[in-house]
Amino acid sequence: MAVHQVLIGGEWRESKSTGTFRAENPRTKEPSADEFPISSWSECDEVLKQAAAAAVELRRLPAEVLARFLERYAERIEGCKQELVEIAHTETALPKAPRLADVELPRTTGQLRQAAAAARSASWSLPTIDTAAGIRSMLGPLGPICVFGPNNFPFAFGSISGGDFAAAIAAGNPVIAKANSSHPGTTRRFAQEANQAAGECELPSGTVQLIYRTSHEDGERLVGDPRVGGTGYTGSRHAGLRLKEAADRAGKPIYLELSSVNPVVILPGALSERGEELAQQFSSSCLMGTGQFCTNPGLVLLLAGTETTTFVERISAQFESAPVGTLLSKSVEQNLTRGVRGLIDAGAEVLVGNSAGGGQGYSFANTLLSASARQFLRHNVELQAEAFGNAALIVIAENVDELTAVIDHLEGNLTGCVYSATQGTDDAIYEKVAFHLRPKVGRLLNDKMPTGVAVSAAMNHGGPFPATGHPGFTAVGIPASLRRFAMLQCYDGVRSHRLPPVLRDKNPNGTIWRFIDGAWSKADVG
Amino acid sequence: MAVHQVLIGGEWRESKSTGTFRAENPRTKEPSADEFPISSWSECDEVLKQAAAAAVELRRLPAEVLARFLERYAERIEGCKQELVEIAHTETALPKAPRLADVELPRTTGQLRQAAAAARSASWSLPTIDTAAGIRSMLGPLGPICVFGPNNFPFAFGSISGGDFAAAIAAGNPVIAKANSSHPGTTRRFAQEANQAAGECELPSGTVQLIYRTSHEDGERLVGDPRVGGTGYTGSRHAGLRLKEAADRAGKPIYLELSSVNPVVILPGALSERGEELAQQFSSSCLMGTGQFCTNPGLVLLLAGTETTTFVERISAQFESAPVGTLLSKSVEQNLTRGVRGLIDAGAEVLVGNSAGGGQGYSFANTLLSASARQFLRHNVELQAEAFGNAALIVIAENVDELTAVIDHLEGNLTGCVYSATQGTDDAIYEKVAFHLRPKVGRLLNDKMPTGVAVSAAMNHGGPFPATGHPGFTAVGIPASLRRFAMLQCYDGVRSHRLPPVLRDKNPNGTIWRFIDGAWSKADVG
Repeated sequence: MAVHQVLIGGEWRESKSTGTFRAENPRTKEPSADEFPISSWSECDEVLKQAAAAAVELRRLPAEVLARFLERYAERIEGCKQELVEIAHTETALPKAPRLADVELPRTTGQLRQAAAAARSASWSLPTIDTAAGIRSMLGPLGPICVFGPNNFPFAFGSISGGDFAAAIAAGNPVIAKANSSHPGTTRRFAQEANQAAGECELPSGTVQLIYRTSHEDGERLVGDPRVGGTGYTGSRHAGLRLKEAADRAGKPIYLELSSVNPVVILPGALSERGEELAQQFSSSCLMGTGQFCTNPGLVLLLAGTETTTFVERISAQFESAPVGTLLSKSVEQNLTRGVRGLIDAGAEVLVGNSAGGGQGYSFANTLLSASARQFLRHNVELQAEAFGNAALIVIAENVDELTAVIDHLEGNLTGCVYSATQGTDDAIYEKVAFHLRPKVGRLLNDKMPTGVAVSAAMNHGGPFPATGHPGFTAVGIPASLRRFAMLQCYDGVRSHRLPPVLRDKNPNGTIWRFIDGAWSKADVG
Repeated sequence: MAVHQVLIGGEWRESKSTGTFRAENPRTKEPSADEFPISSWSECDEVLKQAAAAAVELRRLPAEVLARFLERYAERIEGCKQELVEIAHTETALPKAPRLADVELPRTTGQLRQAAAAARSASWSLPTIDTAAGIRSMLGPLGPICVFGPNNFPFAFGSISGGDFAAAIAAGNPVIAKANSSHPGTTRRFAQEANQAAGECELPSGTVQLIYRTSHEDGERLVGDPRVGGTGYTGSRHAGLRLKEAADRAGKPIYLELSSVNPVVILPGALSERGEELAQQFSSSCLMGTGQFCTNPGLVLLLAGTETTTFVERISAQFESAPVGTLLSKSVEQNLTRGVRGLIDAGAEVLVGNSAGGGQGYSFANTLLSASARQFLRHNVELQAEAFGNAALIVIAENVDELTAVIDHLEGNLTGCVYSATQGTDDAIYEKVAFHLRPKVGRLLNDKMPTGVAVSAAMNHGGPFPATGHPGFTAVGIPASLRRFAMLQCYDGVRSHRLPPVLRDKNPNGTIWRFIDGAWSKADVG
């Protein structure tokens, strides 16, 4: 079978590859029949050339064209839903339903449509007008955006279909998508639809491009190339940090989503009030999708006591009895094995699990580990290393001071949850815990698990390093996620007919929110 | 005379120094009698400890306390205005009036008061509420902010008085100020007033701290320290890039303002219409403050022609006859000498100047250089290197294509200006030029020089790398400049009485703009 083609400048082309690779079916451990190219630098260079040309053309086009593209693309995705679900299921072992077909696919098309609406309204760009000074500004496109998608959301975070893609396009930028090597076929199928939709909407030919893989060196060269505007990356910490270093050196914005253990604190009153329910909630959240969520609760913080002992027994039993899911790939199994080993080496005790296999294909036993807060404080670096998958570490503190000390020693995380009694008996502890946790996490939750990430304007799927690369931005939630892929563009004394329509006196469609002389308004100026 | 003390934890203390330094009077080249300490790492560590403790305390205080501090500080600055002007004049040679007393000082107190108003209103934090999803978010404090001020604005960009200081404090963060070594006495005098005001307002004792200098290594360690939230730096590209690398490695936001040549394009119609006036405007802007502005117009792009020849003759005569100002320091003279030499080595022709001295103390002749666009394109890296001070390079293009090619080869800049005929004869060229210039600059101006930087909500004093470290943020203009020193904090399902007041249903003072269910509003929720 021929090697699959890459999408460059609107055309599917033979790749100038330096090699090829195949994905595996994680349930059968069989390599796929499909062979995908590893692009050479000269191919990256061609992609960059096309993207740079598209970026120039896009600046001349009304945002309406991009909005229509995003909507048309969403329709086309729905048109081949069954096929996408089949391919993704084969490549990732994620359940076809409800996960892929009924949750992730609608989320993906929903994001594309929300991004379309945001592009059309332009309110995302925070247009700001100072009539007295004659100065006006807004966020404008940044240039070609490289998107590196993760392995765990082949649709909703896919490099040519997910949140970064939608945000980058809606902000007026071309996208250079780099497929995740574990689901190249899924990405290719999306790219076909994206390219068709782009053609129908007459987008510049380099707006949507796809390559599958590069060498590490070429990846680093790509994100630092002068023609690039910025990068969105979701994936492993190690690879992400290499890209970050390259982008930082070139002064190019890079938005990373790296690793997060997502601490969950369950206070004594909550445990005595609804311990059984909370055990169920935790086990479901932690084992859902075989634990392969960015916001998977991987660290549970508890205060020592009888209720805690009962809680740990309950979740141990649940972890023991729950079916073992298939992991996304061989490397996820390897990394999970290594991650659990690292926790044990740092003094964590195995309560349940800790053996490879046990499920269909690549898998690892549902694993629960435990450590004292004192042990955690002695080895806090090792004991907060992410073990991505169906494993969690329980840390038990003897008192509230130990508990807050553990929190103070956490790195940045995407989320932090606190469960407390409904009747106020935990409130004094809650206040301390939440105060210490707040600066460590992007999203603070009460009485719910972190695995749901609503596509909401108020969402923060972000957080301090190393959860992400910049604590001021979110990867999920529209319009805020668009602002990552933009530069601030100010017009000082620029003659009115030369201003972009969004900044002219007349609100172009009467619906754009603009900050005019200190007040948000949809009105015309004057 | 004793070595001056450092301000740590609310007290003036003997420094644990590794050495001392003195500033020079740039007009007399005499070292100052005042001796300042170079702080050791153990001193930096103590500063960090105090700042981290203050950051925790500040999170418990209402923003009103910070607002009152900023206002009280502004009053105190006005109370010792004459003294500040005297010291700064001695250390920088900047004119006492109008520059220091009538322009920069009111700008400084104005910024502090605007920051106070922003802190009080909280609208800067973009509170966002999704009532259906039960998710609410806002920008919150980032943690201790290191501020490195530049040499050229001892008041308005001073590390303990300027825009970064005001923005960092108003966003709820302590500041660790590192004085610029060329005006430590001015910075010390500000710090005395800041510390008094902080005491009067009962701020946590580590909110406002000052050290004067560290080794390069300790500076890098400082900006990457886990206790630091982020950094604001304005200064030389070389030192800034070293700090950026250290901060990036630690995943700490750093906002830099590095170098910018601020291209000015003057189109033929404008020249024939008002060439004499434009020559005057350019020469004034370029020589004002001896050219030592971040937004100094250092690169003039012209189309070949008779009018251009006349224009160049006019500005040459003006540069020749204008008095030669004093530069801020010996190193500015050295760097300017080296910078002009670099331009000449890259093929620029000297029209006027190119000799050290000629003014009182540290100085360099007003210098004009010229190169063809073709020469520029051959040596674009060298010919766009900033020669900070009273020097500019004129680049003459044979046609519009050459002109836009030169623009395409520019790095990121803070500003770009285009002058065109009032009657539309330049409009076709304008469109091309502005289109190519737009992505290269943070602020695009029409028919005015870039040296005025209004403190406006719509201002962008920022731009693509290497003008700054992130193209999405501005260093001047409130409220946007506050957002640099903040992290996005989301509350998901958090019980309503536990939300920060800004995110509760009731708008706490009825004046905060909040984005509620897709609409900006000052109303309460529900």
